[in-house]
Amino acid sequence: MSDVEKTCIFCEIVSRKIPCVKIYEDERTIAFADINPLVGGHSLVIPKTHAVNLMDITPGDLAAVHQSCQRVGAAIMKAFKAPGLAVLQLNGSAAGQTVMHYHVHLIPRLGAKDKIGAFTWPVRAGNPKIIEKNALKIISML
Amino acid sequence: MSDVEKTCIFCEIVSRKIPCVKIYEDERTIAFADINPLVGGHSLVIPKTHAVNLMDITPGDLAAVHQSCQRVGAAIMKAFKAPGLAVLQLNGSAAGQTVMHYHVHLIPRLGAKDKIGAFTWPVRAGNPKIIEKNALKIISML
Repeated sequence: MSDVEKTCIFCEIVSRKIPCVKIYEDERTIAFADINPLVGGHSLVIPKTHAVNLMDITPGDLAAVHQSCQRVGAAIMKAFKAPGLAVLQLNGSAAGQTVMHYHVHLIPRLGAKDKIGAFTWPVRAGNPKIIEKNALKIISML
Repeated sequence: MSDVEKTCIFCEIVSRKIPCVKIYEDERTIAFADINPLVGGHSLVIPKTHAVNLMDITPGDLAAVHQSCQRVGAAIMKAFKAPGLAVLQLNGSAAGQTVMHYHVHLIPRLGAKDKIGAFTWPVRAGNPKIIEKNALKIISML
């Protein structure tokens, strides 16, 4: 076990040094309840192998995590009769990531009723020239 | 082409009936600039084959979309010197989904500087008994 894994609370959940309320597990991934839930049913899916973020995770683990999100997400919607589900994954403390082990939030949404303001924003058309300039900037880094 | 594909604006982007500012394309996916960007560099990744949401997309397309997110996301962070990246995928109008074709938002984040309040929430510990009860509800639907 590496030094990173020794101090990573999600690695400690994987190795059962720290308990969790487990929802689902397979060879590569584990899903468990968020202990600070935004709403009832708020769950997390992580790869068992430590990866800091989207840039760090292996393609195989990335695919496996999102397969698990599909399965657990469907179960969350059924369990809470939720017509909506937000899937959220933050990279870097600048984006609000607090645990530095790749994790996907699955958050059931009930629409206006659940009063969660987050995850949506006022739609405002961008300047087409700026949009194109920015796209070229991204393409140059691919 | 099905009736759904005929009226889906993202399918029309795939079939080039509607133009887009394309950033990346491979066999299964396409990435393009959001025309209503929350911040500069805000991009979308979609599967070429129509799928409404996470519950509807095939495992192969789901894996392919997230591989493209990894590649395009890394390029966005480099292009905008962004220390953070939010990856967001909404399912159902109750969650704020507006185009009913599976799509992942890639949004560069600069931390406190970018003044985007969304995607984070105050951390408040949940009631462990309720968390466990909710987890059991989800497990019963797996």
